[in-house]
Amino acid sequence: MRKTVIGVMVGSKAKPAVLQCAHELGALIARQDWILLNGGRNNGVMAASSRGAREAGGLVIGILPDKTPARASPDLDVAILTDMGDARNVINVLSSDFVVACPGRMGTLSEVALALNAGKLVILLGWDVGPAFLPNKRKGRLVRVDSPEAVIDFISKSLAEQATLRDIVPAARD
Amino acid sequence: MRKTVIGVMVGSKAKPAVLQCAHELGALIARQDWILLNGGRNNGVMAASSRGAREAGGLVIGILPDKTPARASPDLDVAILTDMGDARNVINVLSSDFVVACPGRMGTLSEVALALNAGKLVILLGWDVGPAFLPNKRKGRLVRVDSPEAVIDFISKSLAEQATLRDIVPAARD
Amino acid sequence: MRKTVIGVMVGSKAKPAVLQCAHELGALIARQDWILLNGGRNNGVMAASSRGAREAGGLVIGILPDKTPARASPDLDVAILTDMGDARNVINVLSSDFVVACPGRMGTLSEVALALNAGKLVILLGWDVGPAFLPNKRKGRLVRVDSPEAVIDFISKSLAEQATLRDIVPAARD
Amino acid sequence: MRKTVIGVMVGSKAKPAVLQCAHELGALIARQDWILLNGGRNNGVMAASSRGAREAGGLVIGILPDKTPARASPDLDVAILTDMGDARNVINVLSSDFVVACPGRMGTLSEVALALNAGKLVILLGWDVGPAFLPNKRKGRLVRVDSPEAVIDFISKSLAEQATLRDIVPAARD
Repeated sequence: MRKTVIGVMVGSKAKPAVLQCAHELGALIARQDWILLNGGRNNGVMAASSRGAREAGGLVIGILPDKTPARASPDLDVAILTDMGDARNVINVLSSDFVVACPGRMGTLSEVALALNAGKLVILLGWDVGPAFLPNKRKGRLVRVDSPEAVIDFISKSLAEQATLRDIVPAARD
Repeated sequence: MRKTVIGVMVGSKAKPAVLQCAHELGALIARQDWILLNGGRNNGVMAASSRGAREAGGLVIGILPDKTPARASPDLDVAILTDMGDARNVINVLSSDFVVACPGRMGTLSEVALALNAGKLVILLGWDVGPAFLPNKRKGRLVRVDSPEAVIDFISKSLAEQATLRDIVPAARD
Repeated sequence: MRKTVIGVMVGSKAKPAVLQCAHELGALIARQDWILLNGGRNNGVMAASSRGAREAGGLVIGILPDKTPARASPDLDVAILTDMGDARNVINVLSSDFVVACPGRMGTLSEVALALNAGKLVILLGWDVGPAFLPNKRKGRLVRVDSPEAVIDFISKSLAEQATLRDIVPAARD
Repeated sequence: MRKTVIGVMVGSKAKPAVLQCAHELGALIARQDWILLNGGRNNGVMAASSRGAREAGGLVIGILPDKTPARASPDLDVAILTDMGDARNVINVLSSDFVVACPGRMGTLSEVALALNAGKLVILLGWDVGPAFLPNKRKGRLVRVDSPEAVIDFISKSLAEQATLRDIVPAARD
């Protein structure tokens, strides 16, 4: 059975506290034996989550907007090269079982919107995205938590609920 | 010289007032001799803007998420078939000189975010997208207007300003 | 009803005779009131077909691999900007009713293969692609002709046959 | 340092001998501690190479054309969901350090052409693709071998040569 994939969506620039948080989140994901998926570049926040997961012995997949691995984080196990710019954001969210969004700007917001549009559960870590996204909050598709540990708790509970559902309605999967 | 392309981003479902507004916007775009670009499907709002532009004698380009034209609006001049789902949202915004977003949900929000990320000027017609997008409002990259006529006024003024800039700094183009 | 779209696939480099041929093909497509679709760049063969069609009063759509129109031919009516490199080859062939391939190399061969894979009829103009493509030749999906006029004749006959089929079996369309 | 990624391109239908060969190739790739990358679907040849690699303890990445994992092989470690049809062929070849093509049809031929266009070294396993690809053969970018073992030998030698080159010209990488 495939392992759970956690997509961590981040901006390319971030304050030190967000970097620290991304690093910790990467490590916690790895310790759950989940796979970390991110945008793969070797800068600030993407690099921090990759490093955290790699140091904790996890598997890290980067989906890069680029044609070559020149800008890939050295902590990736696999660099998926798309040469597709922002269109790779769609691949990021579709390939993730859960999407975690750290504070970011337009690129991250596009991923939150695309993820919700694709029916994914989105977890905002330490920020909020405003009233335009409210209907998804009401339906429980978009949640806010305030620590990496709370992200792990939330996903663990969701996975447990899904497993219970599958026991009751086996055909519900895919 | 290529004509100005106006991308109209809309949701697949809409209230009658939004349909009416999209139809009128399509017609006004055509009367300026601008090209209308949208998502191309034959439903509610997309179809309404296409019909408006076509009836007014304009050129309509639809960028479809599909592999075949089975779901394309009959009012398109050209159906660009991408077979790429939401990744075509990136093509929509990159191919537009200006992006107009009618009230929509996650698909439309992703296009607003992707357009701003690509440096496009985005015009919200009759709605707002909340504080997460505020920095773009401050920089004048995201504006709200409340009628199709105001969309046309805004774009006309921007084009005039760009033309003036080009006269002063000819190399500024591209 | 949408106009017929003819995709002209060409390499970025070509001998003068191929340039001349592409220019003539563009003009003949325009005179049929068909739309010319190509890769949109402002170099050799792409530019030649675009210029031919534009001079003859036709509509020209370029599907560019780029993020900006900096390298677009000045003879395009619409520049579709994909920022997707070679993945735009798929869009080129899906959006064309017929695919014409001028002598080219790997980029052009990929388009021939993708077009046949998508069920499109492919016309080789003045060259051949070898035995790997033979099954498609046997099925009449891949043909070789040796002049721009013969391309037009072939497409005209195919369109007439399709129209006859539609009269007999109206539901056959899409 | 990232592990070597071997992309195995295959058709969706194949004779038993090709299935057997793909299974063996998957196993040999895994035993070299290389990563197997393929199209990810749960049919014939793709599934055979995935199963071979998984049974031998290797890591298997599938790049699917689909939006959901419903058609993914159960032997994938990670399913990259693109929802992009044949445009994912470009991602397959860009993300591979070496591309191995088993006997296939148009889909596989498009991947051979796209891989060569992207400067990748392509290994044909037990078939040939004809004179249109001859210039690449002459330059040593396209080779034919006739057994899974010969694929491994060829890649091992190429990697050794690249390592030697890097020792002499350290800046040659990326």
